[in-house]
Amino acid sequence: MALLFTSTPDRQPVWQALFDAEGIPMIAGEDAVTDPKAVTAIACWVPPADLSRYPNLRAVISVGAGVDHLPPLPEGVVLSRTLAPGIEAMVRDWVVMATLMLHRDMPRYLEQGRTGSWQSHPVALASSRRVGILGMGRIGTLAAVGLQRLGFDVAGLSRSGRQGVVPMFAASGMKGFLARSDLLICLLPLTPETRGILSAETLSALPRGACLVHAGRGAHLDTDALREALDTGRISAAMLDVTNPEPLPADHWMWQDPRVIVTPHVAAQTDATEGAHHALAVMRSLRDGTPVPGLVDQARGY
Amino acid sequence: MALLFTSTPDRQPVWQALFDAEGIPMIAGEDAVTDPKAVTAIACWVPPADLSRYPNLRAVISVGAGVDHLPPLPEGVVLSRTLAPGIEAMVRDWVVMATLMLHRDMPRYLEQGRTGSWQSHPVALASSRRVGILGMGRIGTLAAVGLQRLGFDVAGLSRSGRQGVVPMFAASGMKGFLARSDLLICLLPLTPETRGILSAETLSALPRGACLVHAGRGAHLDTDALREALDTGRISAAMLDVTNPEPLPADHWMWQDPRVIVTPHVAAQTDATEGAHHALAVMRSLRDGTPVPGLVDQARGY
Ligand SMILES: NC(=O)c1ccc[n+]([C@@H]2O[C@H](COP(=O)([O-])OP(=O)(O)OC[C@H]3O[C@@H](n4cnc5c(N)ncnc54)[C@H](OP(=O)(O)O)[C@@H]3O)[C@@H](O)[C@H]2O)c1
Ligand SMILES: NC(=O)c1ccc[n+]([C@@H]2O[C@H](COP(=O)([O-])OP(=O)(O)OC[C@H]3O[C@@H](n4cnc5c(N)ncnc54)[C@H](OP(=O)(O)O)[C@@H]3O)[C@@H](O)[C@H]2O)c1
Repeated sequence: MALLFTSTPDRQPVWQALFDAEGIPMIAGEDAVTDPKAVTAIACWVPPADLSRYPNLRAVISVGAGVDHLPPLPEGVVLSRTLAPGIEAMVRDWVVMATLMLHRDMPRYLEQGRTGSWQSHPVALASSRRVGILGMGRIGTLAAVGLQRLGFDVAGLSRSGRQGVVPMFAASGMKGFLARSDLLICLLPLTPETRGILSAETLSALPRGACLVHAGRGAHLDTDALREALDTGRISAAMLDVTNPEPLPADHWMWQDPRVIVTPHVAAQTDATEGAHHALAVMRSLRDGTPVPGLVDQARGY
Repeated sequence: MALLFTSTPDRQPVWQALFDAEGIPMIAGEDAVTDPKAVTAIACWVPPADLSRYPNLRAVISVGAGVDHLPPLPEGVVLSRTLAPGIEAMVRDWVVMATLMLHRDMPRYLEQGRTGSWQSHPVALASSRRVGILGMGRIGTLAAVGLQRLGFDVAGLSRSGRQGVVPMFAASGMKGFLARSDLLICLLPLTPETRGILSAETLSALPRGACLVHAGRGAHLDTDALREALDTGRISAAMLDVTNPEPLPADHWMWQDPRVIVTPHVAAQTDATEGAHHALAVMRSLRDGTPVPGLVDQARGY
């Protein structure tokens, strides 16, 4: 039993020390593999192209929260996405920041700042802003709690619509959910079902002047539809941490549009220690025959 | 017994309706005063120049949270500052937003956005950021709770240093408080003691690269000292809702400096209903001989 580590080299010493301390073998990089049969799991961003080299492979561990970048895995190989409280808290912080920035008119004040214009606009209480969170998984739930504590009127939508920390809608209730979302937050995983979900149709179902916060994946959003919605006034402002493509080209219209604020996919950064702890938990579960943490339903895509 | 209302005319109908409902007389504007002896209290931003006209005046109610703009009152006239949960929540929201913006490098990302540069910088957990709140009154306490819930490592400083929701320092412990404040938030009232408190000396006692969030009063901050601290790297970025003077002139250096974000004194806006409720509470206390809510210690200045 061994873990093959193919993530970034700077994290390797941290992982190695933690694996050594636990007495679970870790191999750093494919070149270091002497006995491919020993490899039970691979921790990676993208797995090696030829997985047939590892006959005893049982799990692939994605070192990020998303798994949309991974190719299909051989039959019998499970997929685990990293469960990391630190990453989740970081995304929550970014989402709370972005929500407050749009709630409190920052795009407008930043634009006014360029010409030194001192002009105030009406201030609303958080309780008067209906926030809708698209995707109520680990991160969506954390964001919902954070925003609710500040007084925002929060609802959530998930595929199942199962009970959450705020009033919930199922995927079938999308229309009603959008109609009550003055500020829409996307925290969905990217799957065949959710690709392009932030479409012209979706945006036009929001209340007039709504705001958009997007920290899911770039391919959720149709940026042409966003531009159109900004121009018609359907959307008043947007804050995006993910774009399509990434990096966003320097001459893309969104960089220059004062109604859109883009950050370069920095809502969260993986912490080496957290990632290693998750991988160790997966290795233990494989050894002990207990449920694999962060198990992804590969058919569903998340 | 009557209240003389001299605040902005748009709020007057809201106040009038609430006073009528309670059966407490309200006079709108000095011109409408027929019997000056009936005036027991005045609700105002700045009181009328000649208060000797009102021989039975017992209280002046400032319609804002601050009272630093008020002249000394005649002996025996008490001063009440508006207690308004809405205003306090608004300032808390602005402070949480500004803190997250500096914590998450927004000035840098906004600057990069101007040239369409997609470059990420290390992301830190909130728990690794030591936040220091200067002024732990009603608003400072609310901000401390909000930031603590997001995981920030918060401490506070007040004049007395009395127990609070976070570890507290007294005014005499300023040096130690500043030395642990990676991000300093000013929520002080403006008094003779606090004027200019954000001085070169204060800023230089912060850890290198610290951030400043300021929502107190413009005259707390020496902007020349801020510029110097930015240039030496003592301060890395600042977010200010209050300036000196206000409005900040269009050609002031702070508007153009990417390390400084200015909003035009919009952390909070008075809500007419809240203001009227406070004034009614003051009128009842004068009638019933109970403690006046929001009583200001005029010698202390807050
Ligand atoms: N910007 C960044 O730096 C960053 C960092 C980390 C993560 N992320 C993004 O955040 C995403 C969410 O992470 P997570 O850990 O919260 O995921 P998660 O725990 O797997 O939750 C996913 C949520 O989305 C819902 N969902 C899935 N498909 C749906 C559909 N077709 N219609 C409606 N709802 C659907 C799920 O519904 P059920 O509850 O019914 O299953 C669940 O509530 C990641 O996949 C990634 O895209 C971004
Ligand atoms: N930007 C905006 O839109 C906006 C809106 C509303 C308010 N404000 C500002 O926020 C200020 C605070 O409001 P608040 O309602 O929280 O006030 P507050 O309840 O009166 O609290 C004042 C706090 O400051 C402390 N303090 C006073 N003098 C001090 C000194 N010399 N050294 C150290 N600490 C001192 C007090 O200490 P003790 O606890 O020991 O008395 C107390 O903790 C207002 O005065 C105003 O300047 C700004």
